Amino acid sequence: MKRRIGEQTLIFTNEPVILHTATVAGNKEGAGKLGGYFDVVLTDNIDGCASWEQCESKMMERAVRAAVLKSGRNIEDIDCVLAGDLLNQLMSTHFAMRTVGRPFLGLYGACSTMAESMLVGSMMVDGGYCDTVACCASSHHEAAERQYRFPTELGVQRPPIAQWTVTGAGSAVIGKAVYGPRVTTGTIGKVVDYGIKDTNALGAAMAPAAVDTLRQHFADTGRTPAYYDKIYTGDLGVIGREIVLRMMREDGIELGGVYDDCGCMIYLENQDAHAGASGCASSALVFCGYLFKQMLKQKLSKVLLLGTGSLHSPTSYQQKESIPCISHAVSIEL
Amino acid sequence: MKRRIGEQTLIFTNEPVILHTATVAGNKEGAGKLGGYFDVVLTDNIDGCASWEQCESKMMERAVRAAVLKSGRNIEDIDCVLAGDLLNQLMSTHFAMRTVGRPFLGLYGACSTMAESMLVGSMMVDGGYCDTVACCASSHHEAAERQYRFPTELGVQRPPIAQWTVTGAGSAVIGKAVYGPRVTTGTIGKVVDYGIKDTNALGAAMAPAAVDTLRQHFADTGRTPAYYDKIYTGDLGVIGREIVLRMMREDGIELGGVYDDCGCMIYLENQDAHAGASGCASSALVFCGYLFKQMLKQKLSKVLLLGTGSLHSPTSYQQKESIPCISHAVSIEL
Repeated sequence: MKRRIGEQTLIFTNEPVILHTATVAGNKEGAGKLGGYFDVVLTDNIDGCASWEQCESKMMERAVRAAVLKSGRNIEDIDCVLAGDLLNQLMSTHFAMRTVGRPFLGLYGACSTMAESMLVGSMMVDGGYCDTVACCASSHHEAAERQYRFPTELGVQRPPIAQWTVTGAGSAVIGKAVYGPRVTTGTIGKVVDYGIKDTNALGAAMAPAAVDTLRQHFADTGRTPAYYDKIYTGDLGVIGREIVLRMMREDGIELGGVYDDCGCMIYLENQDAHAGASGCASSALVFCGYLFKQMLKQKLSKVLLLGTGSLHSPTSYQQKESIPCISHAVSIEL
Repeated sequence: MKRRIGEQTLIFTNEPVILHTATVAGNKEGAGKLGGYFDVVLTDNIDGCASWEQCESKMMERAVRAAVLKSGRNIEDIDCVLAGDLLNQLMSTHFAMRTVGRPFLGLYGACSTMAESMLVGSMMVDGGYCDTVACCASSHHEAAERQYRFPTELGVQRPPIAQWTVTGAGSAVIGKAVYGPRVTTGTIGKVVDYGIKDTNALGAAMAPAAVDTLRQHFADTGRTPAYYDKIYTGDLGVIGREIVLRMMREDGIELGGVYDDCGCMIYLENQDAHAGASGCASSALVFCGYLFKQMLKQKLSKVLLLGTGSLHSPTSYQQKESIPCISHAVSIEL
């Protein structure tokens, strides 16, 4: 049985259901626009741990366990966890998985990880390889900043185009059910690199990858923007969002009000996040915290989520390489 | 249709075929036991590139393109590339994928990546989500050493228990065909951590993860060691191999001559590799270079390959954490 349409899109004919989601957010995120939607908001970004990396691990483990609990399953019912984060060698994920103790596949898609994990996880359920999977992603502001840029204690000034790495973790449990939001398709992205070398300009670097996958998704499925109630990119921020709108307009496609970016939905204007939110947890918190609940309330019934990942490393930046980017899409429908 | 047996094992009822494989190896590996089996052997570990990381990228791209060519396909026929390496943010993989230009899913399983990519890739073909996929992994001695331990220029003395990170890349193209070695099952590993903190003792750290997956594979499938012509772990070296033999013996299972470790098959005694080979390319070179060809010649007809990955990071080591490990298994049969 053929389960692919067009060039890059998988169709999930058995329509795996998102049974439930859960989120753990940092204090800045909790004080932001969507604060009321998160299950747990930390009072500080260390949460009693010995390091920021441990705090991130703890957030991921809590998000997985909470999502499993809310879905009415036990952790032993999870046939596979698919997860990743931004830290070198997926440090937060691996230490969380040590205590979660379930079969595990590690993914690296940078900030596209939430969508990548839902894409692969939905395939595992749709294909009959698993009954229930947990898909997760996390990021932590201080842990990511000291790895990618500067330790936050240095107080280095951030340029206005920079985005703020989100502290948080989100998890979605996908399985079989009669009701609930279903993952209906997944479009696998290609690596796209438009030559940007400034690691503060990640929104601009990632926007062409999002457009590439969006165009391909429409071409593969025959759908148009009008098919969806909302289309979200993961963490392009205000600059990247504007580039997506313009590039699509050049194709003759007006996204207009149907499109928004998760990175523009987390922080308030006065929270000093500059161009918006970034990090794996940007799309993880917005999808698992907000969008999923909007779908349960039937305020949204057809959503396209495009995870967006900047695949550079501090080493590639030091070697003066440009920034390769990727975007994976999943459509979720009631 | 249910495609999972027992707790952790997927069965590929359509039996995706490994169409062909290709390898690019470093000069030390080319001078080793299996030198004659590699498609390309570099004359030095920089290969005209500006950095070791670029050299690794180039190896991966060559391995992918060569495997695709040998399989009689064009690069455009590859529906998805599944790949990873050891470098922070999968640097070598991402820069290779930029020029390969095919839909791509990034995986991080440390040195278990070759098996992880074959497991997920086989699932995509078996389930009808892709016609043809390319599965790849790479590592580079100098790039890995300076990231994980010390720049090799420092000439730091290595303890006798240390293993030598392999320079090389391997790729396997999996698709549909009437003849050829078939991927019949895949057992997804759990993270296992026995508390070892010495990052030179990776073979010892990873052995319990390999045993955990091996036991589960036998329990899930009802198979015994006698079912296989050969069982290989990825890169445990002489110390880890001995631990696997002993732990299985304590279970009453005598692996004996049916078992070997890829990390013990690459270097000659006089090549100063100490406890053996390690790195993603250990199992990638041995499987894609040697074992696949033995299967084509019908010298081996049932093989179990257990990728073994040490999931620590330099940060986790500095934070005095122990080493979480994982092992994913794929069975390949004629």
